[in-house]
Amino acid sequence: MAVQTLPFGTLIAVDRQSAIPIFRQIANSLIKLIRKGKIKPGYQLPATRDMASMLKLNRTTIVAAYEEMQAQGWLEVIKRKGNFVAQHLPVTSPKSFEASTQERLLSLDQKIFYRQIAVPQPLTRQLKPYQMMINDGYPDARIAPLDLIVDRYKFLSGRTNVHNRLLADGSKGSNLLRTELAHFLSKTRALDITPEQVLITHGAQSAISIAASMILQPGSTVVVGDLNYPLADRLFEQQGAKLIKVKVDHNGIDIDEIENICKQSVPSLLYIVPHHHHPTTVTLSAERRNKLLDIIRRYRLPVIEDDYDYDFHYENAPILPLASAEHDNFVLYIGSISKTLSPTVRLGYLIGAEDFIWQASKLKQVLDIRGDVLFEESVGHLFNSGEMQRHLRRSVKLYKSRRDEFCEILNSSLGDHAKFNVPNGGMAVWTLFDPGYSIPQLSERLAAQGIYLNDGSIYKYKDDTNGMRLGFASLNTNEMQSFAHTLKKSR
Amino acid sequence: MAVQTLPFGTLIAVDRQSAIPIFRQIANSLIKLIRKGKIKPGYQLPATRDMASMLKLNRTTIVAAYEEMQAQGWLEVIKRKGNFVAQHLPVTSPKSFEASTQERLLSLDQKIFYRQIAVPQPLTRQLKPYQMMINDGYPDARIAPLDLIVDRYKFLSGRTNVHNRLLADGSKGSNLLRTELAHFLSKTRALDITPEQVLITHGAQSAISIAASMILQPGSTVVVGDLNYPLADRLFEQQGAKLIKVKVDHNGIDIDEIENICKQSVPSLLYIVPHHHHPTTVTLSAERRNKLLDIIRRYRLPVIEDDYDYDFHYENAPILPLASAEHDNFVLYIGSISKTLSPTVRLGYLIGAEDFIWQASKLKQVLDIRGDVLFEESVGHLFNSGEMQRHLRRSVKLYKSRRDEFCEILNSSLGDHAKFNVPNGGMAVWTLFDPGYSIPQLSERLAAQGIYLNDGSIYKYKDDTNGMRLGFASLNTNEMQSFAHTLKKSR
Repeated sequence: MAVQTLPFGTLIAVDRQSAIPIFRQIANSLIKLIRKGKIKPGYQLPATRDMASMLKLNRTTIVAAYEEMQAQGWLEVIKRKGNFVAQHLPVTSPKSFEASTQERLLSLDQKIFYRQIAVPQPLTRQLKPYQMMINDGYPDARIAPLDLIVDRYKFLSGRTNVHNRLLADGSKGSNLLRTELAHFLSKTRALDITPEQVLITHGAQSAISIAASMILQPGSTVVVGDLNYPLADRLFEQQGAKLIKVKVDHNGIDIDEIENICKQSVPSLLYIVPHHHHPTTVTLSAERRNKLLDIIRRYRLPVIEDDYDYDFHYENAPILPLASAEHDNFVLYIGSISKTLSPTVRLGYLIGAEDFIWQASKLKQVLDIRGDVLFEESVGHLFNSGEMQRHLRRSVKLYKSRRDEFCEILNSSLGDHAKFNVPNGGMAVWTLFDPGYSIPQLSERLAAQGIYLNDGSIYKYKDDTNGMRLGFASLNTNEMQSFAHTLKKSR
Repeated sequence: MAVQTLPFGTLIAVDRQSAIPIFRQIANSLIKLIRKGKIKPGYQLPATRDMASMLKLNRTTIVAAYEEMQAQGWLEVIKRKGNFVAQHLPVTSPKSFEASTQERLLSLDQKIFYRQIAVPQPLTRQLKPYQMMINDGYPDARIAPLDLIVDRYKFLSGRTNVHNRLLADGSKGSNLLRTELAHFLSKTRALDITPEQVLITHGAQSAISIAASMILQPGSTVVVGDLNYPLADRLFEQQGAKLIKVKVDHNGIDIDEIENICKQSVPSLLYIVPHHHHPTTVTLSAERRNKLLDIIRRYRLPVIEDDYDYDFHYENAPILPLASAEHDNFVLYIGSISKTLSPTVRLGYLIGAEDFIWQASKLKQVLDIRGDVLFEESVGHLFNSGEMQRHLRRSVKLYKSRRDEFCEILNSSLGDHAKFNVPNGGMAVWTLFDPGYSIPQLSERLAAQGIYLNDGSIYKYKDDTNGMRLGFASLNTNEMQSFAHTLKKSR
């Protein structure tokens, strides 16, 4: 090598799995070294050939990296001499101001105070890009008509004045989507609502979050199922509320127990998932719904009815929501469009009395102004053209057959090691494993095959519950077979 | 008319401005009447010709409305007899349960308790679809490369396993976009950050909201400018904090006053807009920034630096953010992609120490799981390909010339009735009108021309401030001329 140089082979790490092209990674690493002062202006970088051999990469990759740095102004190429770190670095172009050297009066380890969020181990930190994912009940994004939505988005974005018209729809969300939803919900769920009673949100979770924020304050009490959807529990706790847990059996949440609680002191809120309760997938029976409606009206008990799974019911017709009966505006109804299209799409809705929704839209304005109204409008068009309804019918048919296929696979692969009931709807099977069956070990074995399965720590519902929701809707036959293969070996 | 019939001319209202086709509006109105029991199963609707004359519409519109109702199962057509409301209405297909008739123990007017949100008059309730909108500082969505974003979205959505890979990126947002932003912010703002220090949010407002939620609790104190961005003030109040207002002059917020406050008791948070303070558009001087950094470190004062306007600076280079200097992790930095693309796109970012961002991503997970990662990835690609940077350069050039054109128009149209300083960046001119000049009257005159201008009630900053932000970036020459025309008549 012509010049004594830094150990770039160890200084620069390349991640071949990354979405960032390798030449960009190299350029970024070098820029970082320059910014940190480890490489000074005027420093001569190794020739591309030398750098390539140090990093064990193709020379063209290094050429591209240097060109990138040159384009950004970090590198100067002097003909027949080489590549030098620029004398005037691009960072100095904005007007700078010198940080004062005044001594600090307080110790350095006194840090900014901020909340520690009590999500035991979130869904996502441990995830690597797997070949395939066993989730806890997502739709199959591959069959969703996302292309139609973005075609419409593109069409609308090019039209004069569309943006102004959509901004005029305000924090509640696109008028078209709200109108279509009011119509769709009235047709499918007998909800007697106007578009002014619909708030579009970033998914059902955001709808729960806004509804709860409107009602809860520190010290409030929330009745939830035992077991319950963990992210709802964490959300209510986050808002300072105390959870009161009520048993859930094969007919849903225990209504008598709710009444007993109300007799002592009416809670601030009841959260229920009437179709396919999370995690156990049971449906709240019609008889219990009647009883619950009485309690709601008698005790003036505010309810969040999270009915995200209503459209995916396979055996018989779904039971109408509480929100479709007379409830004196005490029932807030929540649904999800993410569950119909793709978990990457964030769209849900909150239904309530007109003034409640008006106030909630003001809360939404303060929290994040509005949603992506152009995207919402495009989804509204999908309803309007009937494509969404067709997609739903196709999905229900497909997911029903996937459920059957998946349950057969579970039966033949797990044998006596697990119990489950075939769910009559939804996208997941609630599977209770033997106490001796190790979910973390299964997770590891699957990971070795490129299949992601949560190791059980996210949905550690209770210490004595060795259970897990296994999502089937997003898996095709091949994927189910791969899963079965590893399951069998894990017995 | 052949049959005695209801007064459909008054029962059915048609809105020709609506995005919903008229035939759908009519079908919806009729379905509503059926659902409310005003029209019973078996009822014969007027013939299309008669209905058309009652509603003063074309007969083909009524035919389309009836066909829609028939397709949905609300209407039965009996040949040579007419159109009858179906005997079996579609609402009865889901399994129903009877609402109990039990008497209510509490009075009907006792309602669900919920918050009233203190946004004086939100942006949006009064808006109709105008020809044109004078906003308070939005970019021109018509020049944004939204088509490239959705092309990429479409490309990605069709690829195997993209959804799983993106879901693995988790609540922080798309890895690609975070990597690109870390790179972009390091290049343009000298922020020395990794992608793990970036949280993608639904616009800058959501970034403020998440950052504030991490730090504030009921009884907290927040120092803000006087005047200040009203939606930030409302947000902090919403979270139970008390505002401490500090004067803003032509060099930005008064730092000595902030120090005096800290000497008595260090506030929970300081919120600043260092470039183009909202509403007055002044820039915080380099000298004051140095002083402020000292105070931040000395008093361990947490700061939200809302630098949404950094990329739009026209006269000289912008001043580097506080976040680029040594601040012991006490400065949280916020920016907006919505301001670069379109107000309909909801993308912003929050920058902080890695653990802070990790905790904030868990809060985001509880609030709304994640953003639309497929859309985020597509925007990441726009940065990666350099298109975003090119778009920014084009925008800055265009907005600078629009600013000059707009200021000339204000000068010649308003004469002595208003004062303003030409802003050195941003997308709006802070205009102070004579005490006698009526903004509501101007707003009305503009409305008559199809031009929306807020009547002043949203940004009623103070009783003695007859001022308004007039956005220029989204107006082309023709639109500015229309505005000028009405302004001149309004003197």
